[in-house]
Amino acid sequence: MMKYLFIPLVLICFSSFAQQEELIKYVKPIIGTDRMGHTYPGATVPFGAVQLSPETDTIPYEVNGKYNKEVYKYCAGYQYQDKTIVGFSHTHFSGTGHSDLGDFLIMPTTGTLQTNPGTAANPESGFRSGFSHANEVAEPDYYKVKLDKYNILAELTATTRVGFHQYTFPASDHAHIILDAVYGIYNYPDKNVWTFIRVENDTLVTGYRQTTGWARTRTVYFAMAFSRRIEDYGFQNNSKKEVYKGFWGKFDQNRNFPEIAGTQIKAWFDFSTAEGDKIKIKFALSPVSTANAIENLLAETPGWDFNEVKKNGQALWEKELQKIVVSADTATKENFYTSMYHAFINPTVYMDVNGEYRGLDQNTHHAAGFTNYTTFSLWDTHRALHPLFNIIQPKRNSDMINSMLAHYDQSAQKMLPVWSNSANENWCMIGYHSVSVIADAVVKGITGFDAERALMASTLTAEHSNYGGLEYYIRLGYVPEDKSSSSVSKTLEYAYDDWCILQMADKLHREGIAHHFTQRSENFWSVHDASSGFMRPRMSDGTFKKDFDVLNTDEPGFIEGNAWNYSFYIPHRPTELIQMMGGQKRFVAHLDSLFTMQLPDSFFAQTEDITRDGIIGNYVHGNEPSHHIPYLYNWADAAWKTQEHVRMILKKMYRPTPDGLSGNDDCGQMSAWYIFSAMGFYPVCPGSDQYALGSPAINGAVLHLENGNNFTIKVQNQGDKNVYVQKVTLNGQTLDRNYITHTEITNSGELVFYMSNKPHKDK
Amino acid sequence: MMKYLFIPLVLICFSSFAQQEELIKYVKPIIGTDRMGHTYPGATVPFGAVQLSPETDTIPYEVNGKYNKEVYKYCAGYQYQDKTIVGFSHTHFSGTGHSDLGDFLIMPTTGTLQTNPGTAANPESGFRSGFSHANEVAEPDYYKVKLDKYNILAELTATTRVGFHQYTFPASDHAHIILDAVYGIYNYPDKNVWTFIRVENDTLVTGYRQTTGWARTRTVYFAMAFSRRIEDYGFQNNSKKEVYKGFWGKFDQNRNFPEIAGTQIKAWFDFSTAEGDKIKIKFALSPVSTANAIENLLAETPGWDFNEVKKNGQALWEKELQKIVVSADTATKENFYTSMYHAFINPTVYMDVNGEYRGLDQNTHHAAGFTNYTTFSLWDTHRALHPLFNIIQPKRNSDMINSMLAHYDQSAQKMLPVWSNSANENWCMIGYHSVSVIADAVVKGITGFDAERALMASTLTAEHSNYGGLEYYIRLGYVPEDKSSSSVSKTLEYAYDDWCILQMADKLHREGIAHHFTQRSENFWSVHDASSGFMRPRMSDGTFKKDFDVLNTDEPGFIEGNAWNYSFYIPHRPTELIQMMGGQKRFVAHLDSLFTMQLPDSFFAQTEDITRDGIIGNYVHGNEPSHHIPYLYNWADAAWKTQEHVRMILKKMYRPTPDGLSGNDDCGQMSAWYIFSAMGFYPVCPGSDQYALGSPAINGAVLHLENGNNFTIKVQNQGDKNVYVQKVTLNGQTLDRNYITHTEITNSGELVFYMSNKPHKDK
Repeated sequence: MMKYLFIPLVLICFSSFAQQEELIKYVKPIIGTDRMGHTYPGATVPFGAVQLSPETDTIPYEVNGKYNKEVYKYCAGYQYQDKTIVGFSHTHFSGTGHSDLGDFLIMPTTGTLQTNPGTAANPESGFRSGFSHANEVAEPDYYKVKLDKYNILAELTATTRVGFHQYTFPASDHAHIILDAVYGIYNYPDKNVWTFIRVENDTLVTGYRQTTGWARTRTVYFAMAFSRRIEDYGFQNNSKKEVYKGFWGKFDQNRNFPEIAGTQIKAWFDFSTAEGDKIKIKFALSPVSTANAIENLLAETPGWDFNEVKKNGQALWEKELQKIVVSADTATKENFYTSMYHAFINPTVYMDVNGEYRGLDQNTHHAAGFTNYTTFSLWDTHRALHPLFNIIQPKRNSDMINSMLAHYDQSAQKMLPVWSNSANENWCMIGYHSVSVIADAVVKGITGFDAERALMASTLTAEHSNYGGLEYYIRLGYVPEDKSSSSVSKTLEYAYDDWCILQMADKLHREGIAHHFTQRSENFWSVHDASSGFMRPRMSDGTFKKDFDVLNTDEPGFIEGNAWNYSFYIPHRPTELIQMMGGQKRFVAHLDSLFTMQLPDSFFAQTEDITRDGIIGNYVHGNEPSHHIPYLYNWADAAWKTQEHVRMILKKMYRPTPDGLSGNDDCGQMSAWYIFSAMGFYPVCPGSDQYALGSPAINGAVLHLENGNNFTIKVQNQGDKNVYVQKVTLNGQTLDRNYITHTEITNSGELVFYMSNKPHKDK
Repeated sequence: MMKYLFIPLVLICFSSFAQQEELIKYVKPIIGTDRMGHTYPGATVPFGAVQLSPETDTIPYEVNGKYNKEVYKYCAGYQYQDKTIVGFSHTHFSGTGHSDLGDFLIMPTTGTLQTNPGTAANPESGFRSGFSHANEVAEPDYYKVKLDKYNILAELTATTRVGFHQYTFPASDHAHIILDAVYGIYNYPDKNVWTFIRVENDTLVTGYRQTTGWARTRTVYFAMAFSRRIEDYGFQNNSKKEVYKGFWGKFDQNRNFPEIAGTQIKAWFDFSTAEGDKIKIKFALSPVSTANAIENLLAETPGWDFNEVKKNGQALWEKELQKIVVSADTATKENFYTSMYHAFINPTVYMDVNGEYRGLDQNTHHAAGFTNYTTFSLWDTHRALHPLFNIIQPKRNSDMINSMLAHYDQSAQKMLPVWSNSANENWCMIGYHSVSVIADAVVKGITGFDAERALMASTLTAEHSNYGGLEYYIRLGYVPEDKSSSSVSKTLEYAYDDWCILQMADKLHREGIAHHFTQRSENFWSVHDASSGFMRPRMSDGTFKKDFDVLNTDEPGFIEGNAWNYSFYIPHRPTELIQMMGGQKRFVAHLDSLFTMQLPDSFFAQTEDITRDGIIGNYVHGNEPSHHIPYLYNWADAAWKTQEHVRMILKKMYRPTPDGLSGNDDCGQMSAWYIFSAMGFYPVCPGSDQYALGSPAINGAVLHLENGNNFTIKVQNQGDKNVYVQKVTLNGQTLDRNYITHTEITNSGELVFYMSNKPHKDK
């Protein structure tokens, strides 16, 4: 009896311990900040509207009239190898391959006021300060750094809509807080359309910045509260000619005058500080108005206790991270929880505490019954991030779909989002992958949005003849390269998206729609060139494009993936793909060569967004079209090769170091790939309810689901070499298939992997 | 018996006839459209937010890099002598001396599409059309013109917030409606901050235009509905570099693509027309959003009956004009009712039908219990326009004060408006004459606003040390010219404004405030130079400025008035003014010489805003600081000279012709001067309840007051030569004073002037 009693007690204790272990300590926001990860180390809460983070350079967009390629490095504002910090701004994309944002740079300084950042080569020429990673701490919702030039300790935290700064000053009669509204990420000339700043009283400043960038018509409003009375303040306005400036010239607008407007505005606020004095700033954002920014500020940060705000923010992260409790070695946990962290940054909340947000029609809307989100990098995130949300963030994913439907309603084009941010569609990349996100949710039974309305929006989006060659695709069954570029990528992705609509229509018993999109979902055949064995651009006269390089990623017909990689892109019809490629044996050989072939150096010059480390053979993990490929072996009786390659990618492409990401994190898609793959399964085809099995890199996990159920993963004999799955049981029964279904997860299943260092080749 | 019965019947018939005579027929909106009047001939309702009017030129702001002085002529968009029309835009100032607006030019054309207006010298080079005054009709809320080039009949009318266009086309397969969002009045480079246009569906277009001009940060939103389906449409975007244009480049944004944004946008909408087809456009404005513009459109113009909208608009004018029914010859009636018309254009409604408006903080506000107005040209209009409103528009004037108090609350400076428009303070001219408007209303018992709150706002405005040298004025009792320009004009106007605050404080029994401002109201003494006999700039060391030209209007110390004219500016202390100038006799002689002296030619080169006709001797009627001067004889026992000069001015400065206004109408101030003076009295000192008597130029009038009372003016023996008043009776009693009081008007008084061609010199 004692024996029987003893075991459960241990289990309870262990379980209790596992539940209570703090997980945020494994998050290293610094991962990916070196080179191509394009992540940032600053403070944000899960899906927060504010991303308060240091900027390490102010790269000119043009040098001698030519685009400065260095600008691209600064998508997230921070590069790990830089030696200086120019300040802290409030908005950042996480892991994108294009850039925008960087609104409202704050920099604390002392001594003679300097209003220009100066250069990295000569920091003394401006307000920027040197810093050292030794004096830098980056945690979820907390960033700390010492600004060496000024001996100022800078600390940052945030709520959903408020950035909270705490600067500890030395003694100074000339302490300054600079508010630089000229600074921005990807700040080309004329990007600032307008800025407007008002000093409302001696502790409150409001205003807005309106830009034209990736988001063509974007305005962000702010309210900035100081913990101390402003003693003196001033503005610098380097805007172009103001014709009626004369009337304003009655005032000295540069000194203690409460209102300024123009395109190139900087402000500073002066204080006297004793040694150790803290100047705190609460900086609230709103997409609607300064009045709403003030409301956000008061609602989310009523007090001035920095540590409390930090504690609350970190508790939010802890709560999110606890949704998947893994058992693994520390490095893996760091990779895993940093991936969780990166996966829960985007999409971002785009709504004030009162429910108001700006729509694509630039009107103020009220989100009735849902939280409105923006930052939809859908070409990337439909693949694994939104499927991940359907498991552990279904409520949020449902609201993301509601946000996408609001986008549809407000868009002039009446289309679901392609790549949307800040009440703008930026049309980045291709496809209409909103329909994948929606179909995946519909098929998996996610509730909280109107599925019928979503199906209609999906259908009409897919019928939008003005968009990306759809007019020809609908008529000819493919996008002709002479009519619309990236034609093969488009044709293949449209065919997949059409299959997604078909899934929805099936589920909702809309047979007419289902029939229509069944036909369209087969369109991948139209770009298949049997003679070369590759997907190949076709012309409007029906012929295939003549000259054709299957390796070149800049090859006409393709985008962010060459013909080699894109030829594997029929996620919804892997069996037909295999037939197309000559049956299982030839398919496996072909797939093997993808991972083993030697690429010419010229390839690396062409391929965007990734480091050389981001490539295995010709497999490009840093770009998304290949993300499902390693799992395709599963369909060709070679699951062990999936296992082997997935583990190879997990190991090679994700490391818990600043340079640990092999390519742009792409708003969490790369991280979501990690999370799934590390747990041993992956959504090869969102819109189906199946997850292909791979090879778990952890020792176990418990997924705490919103429905109250837990999905348990146990991994026996896992190890660095034990990458091969010998057996899988689900709820105690041996699984004789290579996938699990969504319901098996949400019904509190227990999945056990039995690992070995030997491949199980007959499975 | 028959005899007795007969007379009343005739009286009843006559009275009834007088009441029912249509008055709008006397309004000639064309008056003042030639040269300096700066009025416009287009369609607007009383105090309407929309002023839909033709533009006759597109004057470049700069020629060869230099300011083009011609731009000034086009403050109202239309110059009578021009031969071509470039289109019709929706916003215009009436009679101002600076310019802005001209939003959303609409031009109907046929044939080959042209997107540039072309030049007046070569109309064929663009879309502009020749026109003839013979084919032009300008009535209140109705404008019609034939566009010769296209044989299109253009007709315009408006509601408060909607411009209604009706274009009658010839047969054409290529009929176009051009929407030019690049056009604007005073359209210097970079004035357009942003424009945004969306084709919502095949009859509805929305968007906005954001400018930086006289109003530094201004956005106007629109909704444009067509009476017919758009057959085809396109955009031209000449904006500067768009860095992320590439993504949008997936679409042909120039043709049937529903959304465009940038700084330089033109759109066109194509139709096929049969002979006589009418294309109608309802063009609604909003200061808040396109959603509100749509709401305004639907609320104010639910149907498509152009004539009904016109009829309703003209009925609104008729109702306003009937508030003063005068008996006079036709030319005088034309002058009088056109003055009424011009007086009732500004301030303009700045609020949507749902009560929302944009505040100075750029937030959306809701006008609780009042109509919000903008376009406050207060340096001009405090003199006679707002006093006129206190008699015949007290409800509106009360709401204007409520609007001014909202401005105060929303302003970063916490000041009442100086010259405000479209949620902006433009700081044009000097003084803080809002306090005069408020004091005049408080003293005259106007209700509907919070007088205590208004007094506080007035007091704090007057204590705003950053503003126009007030810091020194408060300390030294005058504005020193070496510290703040226009110092004499400022000192004198501040002293008057301070007296206004004193009047309010007295009325509200705030003795401390009254005492404070009593002292300040005497400050005119500090700039009086006894040695020269003129008001003279003083330096901060107390000395008078050395070199000093009493005629030069560009003389340091003065603005829009030379030392000669400004030395008469103590409206609140005429008795002290007379003493200052050596007693009544010397004062009268001095005043006489103002009207008779010969000015050197150089004077006319210096003097802004007026024609040579706008000057009598050295008396400049085209600028406002002299407006009270002819009435000052009243205080020096020379009322007959007031009578003589007032009639001279009425005759010389106001004619019912396009060139009939001698200077800028200044948002109705010049017209209000006419209305008062033609009726025989004038508010020399707003803030007092007295109106100085002059010499009526009409034969009689009945003022229909909002309180239900009527004030009757009868003029016996009036005639072109009979300009002298022999006797005045009020309610049958001979009046032994030169003024009447506000209460005497509002209590249904009857004022009878007995005129003669001989001066009554002992009065």
